[in-house]
Amino acid sequence: MSERPATPLLDQIQYPSDIRKLQKAQLPQLAEELRSEMISAVSTSGGHLGSGLGVVELTVAIHYVFDTPDDKLIWDVGHQCYPHKIVTGRRDRIRTLRQGGGLSGFTKRAESEYDPFGAAHSSTSISAALGFAISNKLANKPGRAIAVIGDGAMSAGMAYEAMNNAHEAGNRLVVILNDNDMSIAPPVGGLSHYLARLVSSGKYLKTREIARRVFGRLPKPVEKAARKAEEYARGMVTGGTLFEELGFYYVGPVDGHDVLGLVEILENVRDAKDGPILIHAVTVKGKGYGPAESAADKYHGVVKFDVVSGKQDKGPGGGPPAYTAVFADALKAEMERDEKVVAITAAMPSGTGLDKVEQAFPDRTFDVGIAEQHAVTFAAGLAAQGHRPFCAIYSTFLQRAYDQVVHDVAIQNLPVRFAMDRAGLVGADGCTHAGAFDLAYLCTLPNMVVMAAADEVELANMVHTMALHDSGPSAVRYPRGNGRGLAMPASPQRLEIGKGRIVREGKKVAILSLGTRLEEAEKAADMLEAKGLSTTVADMRFAKPIDEEMVRKLLTTHEVAVTIEEGAIGGFGAQVLTLASDEGLIDAGLKLRTMRLPDIFQDQDAPAKQYDDAGLNAPHIVETVLKALRRNDIAVDADAGAIA
Amino acid sequence: MSERPATPLLDQIQYPSDIRKLQKAQLPQLAEELRSEMISAVSTSGGHLGSGLGVVELTVAIHYVFDTPDDKLIWDVGHQCYPHKIVTGRRDRIRTLRQGGGLSGFTKRAESEYDPFGAAHSSTSISAALGFAISNKLANKPGRAIAVIGDGAMSAGMAYEAMNNAHEAGNRLVVILNDNDMSIAPPVGGLSHYLARLVSSGKYLKTREIARRVFGRLPKPVEKAARKAEEYARGMVTGGTLFEELGFYYVGPVDGHDVLGLVEILENVRDAKDGPILIHAVTVKGKGYGPAESAADKYHGVVKFDVVSGKQDKGPGGGPPAYTAVFADALKAEMERDEKVVAITAAMPSGTGLDKVEQAFPDRTFDVGIAEQHAVTFAAGLAAQGHRPFCAIYSTFLQRAYDQVVHDVAIQNLPVRFAMDRAGLVGADGCTHAGAFDLAYLCTLPNMVVMAAADEVELANMVHTMALHDSGPSAVRYPRGNGRGLAMPASPQRLEIGKGRIVREGKKVAILSLGTRLEEAEKAADMLEAKGLSTTVADMRFAKPIDEEMVRKLLTTHEVAVTIEEGAIGGFGAQVLTLASDEGLIDAGLKLRTMRLPDIFQDQDAPAKQYDDAGLNAPHIVETVLKALRRNDIAVDADAGAIA
Repeated sequence: MSERPATPLLDQIQYPSDIRKLQKAQLPQLAEELRSEMISAVSTSGGHLGSGLGVVELTVAIHYVFDTPDDKLIWDVGHQCYPHKIVTGRRDRIRTLRQGGGLSGFTKRAESEYDPFGAAHSSTSISAALGFAISNKLANKPGRAIAVIGDGAMSAGMAYEAMNNAHEAGNRLVVILNDNDMSIAPPVGGLSHYLARLVSSGKYLKTREIARRVFGRLPKPVEKAARKAEEYARGMVTGGTLFEELGFYYVGPVDGHDVLGLVEILENVRDAKDGPILIHAVTVKGKGYGPAESAADKYHGVVKFDVVSGKQDKGPGGGPPAYTAVFADALKAEMERDEKVVAITAAMPSGTGLDKVEQAFPDRTFDVGIAEQHAVTFAAGLAAQGHRPFCAIYSTFLQRAYDQVVHDVAIQNLPVRFAMDRAGLVGADGCTHAGAFDLAYLCTLPNMVVMAAADEVELANMVHTMALHDSGPSAVRYPRGNGRGLAMPASPQRLEIGKGRIVREGKKVAILSLGTRLEEAEKAADMLEAKGLSTTVADMRFAKPIDEEMVRKLLTTHEVAVTIEEGAIGGFGAQVLTLASDEGLIDAGLKLRTMRLPDIFQDQDAPAKQYDDAGLNAPHIVETVLKALRRNDIAVDADAGAIA
Repeated sequence: MSERPATPLLDQIQYPSDIRKLQKAQLPQLAEELRSEMISAVSTSGGHLGSGLGVVELTVAIHYVFDTPDDKLIWDVGHQCYPHKIVTGRRDRIRTLRQGGGLSGFTKRAESEYDPFGAAHSSTSISAALGFAISNKLANKPGRAIAVIGDGAMSAGMAYEAMNNAHEAGNRLVVILNDNDMSIAPPVGGLSHYLARLVSSGKYLKTREIARRVFGRLPKPVEKAARKAEEYARGMVTGGTLFEELGFYYVGPVDGHDVLGLVEILENVRDAKDGPILIHAVTVKGKGYGPAESAADKYHGVVKFDVVSGKQDKGPGGGPPAYTAVFADALKAEMERDEKVVAITAAMPSGTGLDKVEQAFPDRTFDVGIAEQHAVTFAAGLAAQGHRPFCAIYSTFLQRAYDQVVHDVAIQNLPVRFAMDRAGLVGADGCTHAGAFDLAYLCTLPNMVVMAAADEVELANMVHTMALHDSGPSAVRYPRGNGRGLAMPASPQRLEIGKGRIVREGKKVAILSLGTRLEEAEKAADMLEAKGLSTTVADMRFAKPIDEEMVRKLLTTHEVAVTIEEGAIGGFGAQVLTLASDEGLIDAGLKLRTMRLPDIFQDQDAPAKQYDDAGLNAPHIVETVLKALRRNDIAVDADAGAIA
């Protein structure tokens, strides 16, 4: 922990209205203090650092010029909202970021009226801002909507769809393109090259100059003709034609760290009669903090760190490898074995482990940008021509490509492989990043094979199984975090599709586990045995097709059966229940229960605590079994050992 | 039925290789014959007419120049593939289009090697083509991929994501922008204005001129410098900078009905060293058939018609109104009652009925283009600012916006209303358009209210209920086709959220119906009563939250209970099973069964036949009940009355 920085000016600011009381000349100092405070806060809480540092001046300038919260400020993805939170009434809680009961790491409507729209997935801000702007227009209410969106987020189709509709909003919509030539990783694709050309084409236009030229502060008589000529000239000089062709007035590139220049431009934009306007601001991710500026990922996400050295407190290390790393190693092994195997990520090379894969196989690893829809159909095309693509997309982000999974992959029964990291609850990132729904949304589809890895050895086996599975699509899910510390075998095992495994055999109770709840299921079995209840534990491996034979056997030879999964209603448990019902297994008075994520969106917390809240730890399994057996006379302490 | 046209040249063509044997000079005649044949075929089968007529010359020219099927030709959406089917070995079956056992109305891999990628949803073609192109590149195989995509489809984010990645493919990728200034309805948005400017900016460049200028057929020494200058000039003259900024070589606009000119351009494109190339071809939807050209929708989709008059055989009329019309009337009534209600469609104003709504409320009806993702988040923004948006999106197309439903609507619990037309099986459009999965993919989400209308009165009630439901998101599903012919009450009834209704009371059997299977459930009840089995029929109305009290009561007071829904596994039935399991209702030896769509993608056929194949008609309900009761001694004729 370092000492808190002195912040005399920031100490006067509780809400944006306080910023507006300052002299313009004080704003640079406010920005510096805000930057120090943010670094200090994140050094104690961990979280997203680089993005916030890049928008300190934008944060100050926007709140100074616009009338938030009546004007709606929407931060795309929300990674960069910490400075915004500090100046919108949440400074007192800023050191609780991403912790249980603390502030969310993203914007969140429930937290503040200054967060009009929550965002944690990318590229939603222009659509949402348009909604606010048009709503005000229809209601004849004043009020602008300002979307701040990164250049990486601009590669998503959704941003383009919104820009294509932006003209409806007129001057009520302002889009600030926060171009730091990074999202989490450097951006890819034609748009990125285009932006680079714009930025490199010359020095920034002087802000006064832009203001004068764009907004027609010219002697009246010549104004109209001049504006026409100016428009032409503007396109020619600054080259922002892509945005102009979509209907924006383009302003830029401008220096996103010159707070006084930004204020001047934003004042002009605020007073402009025409719109929508897109301001192309160039910023530096990690700005103003040396260790961040010089790091490859610009300290996108950090744990607690020492402010002076920048050294992150990564703990003792040496524990079991993360599932992400196990996946990457397993995929690399498949790519070594089979040159037809290729890998695809949507702007998450490090998050998915594909950065390691790309080092080994640069030609066969594709980062398509924040473009999950394209990623999946691109993979389908590759599969149709005989390649074996793995799409490594987090469970929650694969939602972006659901129609492509249905229409381009499942209907055509093409062997696209989905590697769904961050399945289940994810801790500090909270509900927006939880992989809660993939089991339901994939198991309802014909042709899909859906697996969940119970541990790291299983994950490697499943990756191998998928690589060899050419007859249709397949998916594997695995959680955020580290494996169990099992020894990895020299070579992976190919699993039989639709077959589970019995982990321990008993007689009275059967626990049908899918995924990494297996560890809790085994603990629960120990606890049940201690109570005299002989317990079978099965790692079912497949949510679809389920191992019908095993289900049939377990359900007919045990008195009570419990399914458990790290997913919401409609997935694995529903598959088991449906089979049991279809075949009349339930008619015999079967005590069958399904344990699953609760029907709420759970806020951020430590994962074990989240699972405790969800009722999916060992004591809850025991409780469920005993309740089913109506043996409530056996005392169960539901809290004991839950978070241990 | 009209006589078949004389087609002497077309009669020599079975496969594209036959086209390549013709003299270039014969191609215009071939195109004319192909057009006549297509009109004749669709006049007997019904189907998509206007789109195919617009691409007759493109079809001939592409197959003449490129080496299909080794070069991969991918028709976006597939509406326009009929001429392609005629010249790729399927002319003998062309009059079976969209009928049970006949040709699909879209491209389909299982049908022909000339259909390398099936498409029926819009805007997938560039992504898929990139997959083919990159696969060939990695394998060092020859072969281009050609995507033909309409200007409407270009408004979808997915097309943009793909264009942003296109540079990876180099000259292996060719995109033909088929610009007819229409998708199904006229396109909207900035892109559309941009294309219109391109097309109107001057007469078409002479094709030879383009070829010479773009592909550097210049004296060698000056080539390089000239090309640079040309590039600049090209951008200036033709203005295709948006595509160039994304990394394409832009060629156009060119006349898409000049088959010889197209051949010349495509030959140049085929031989070009650089790429990817985008050819901007201007076509007329319905080209060459007067009644289509002069119709507002250019005969996008037609029933059987008389070739000479163009008059469509729309049947006697006067039957019950379509669900789509009932929805539109109901929504209009809500918009009259409440000025905060607004309506959103994604390029389907007539398909969703919003064309009628827009006539009455032009300012409060939004067509955002083929942009479902934007539509949903735009709606979320409107809702956050106090409006009451209805998103009218087909069940299958809402898959495109699944992440937005989760992240922007459900997590924030915003009152966006989803009107999901085409729920369940849809007849001639086949599996790509079936609304099979919405119950599973929505019911797994916290905060969602999911309804299904059992008839047209219920639909009006549900629209009213949603308009008044401000505490969170809600959705209603209803099928393609006509209502039951019920009298519509003067004003709709507000339903209690999560409450079903008992339609008839019995004692032994309970049928829990969701949606328009209710009619079959009632028939089944009659059949069961005739066998002495007293039957309750409930219209459960809500798939989520289910009416727990009613489920509890029905399951504990009847000997057998059957759920039925027009959706795949994981939806309504899973909700009932899960409740029954959670509460131990199944422990008592309950005979509970769920009837749902089978776990396959069903091909096109008459809807009643499809439901018969799915096992969801009255006799199947009876059979399920009897099997559950193990009264197989009672004879059941499963076929009787099924398709009546």
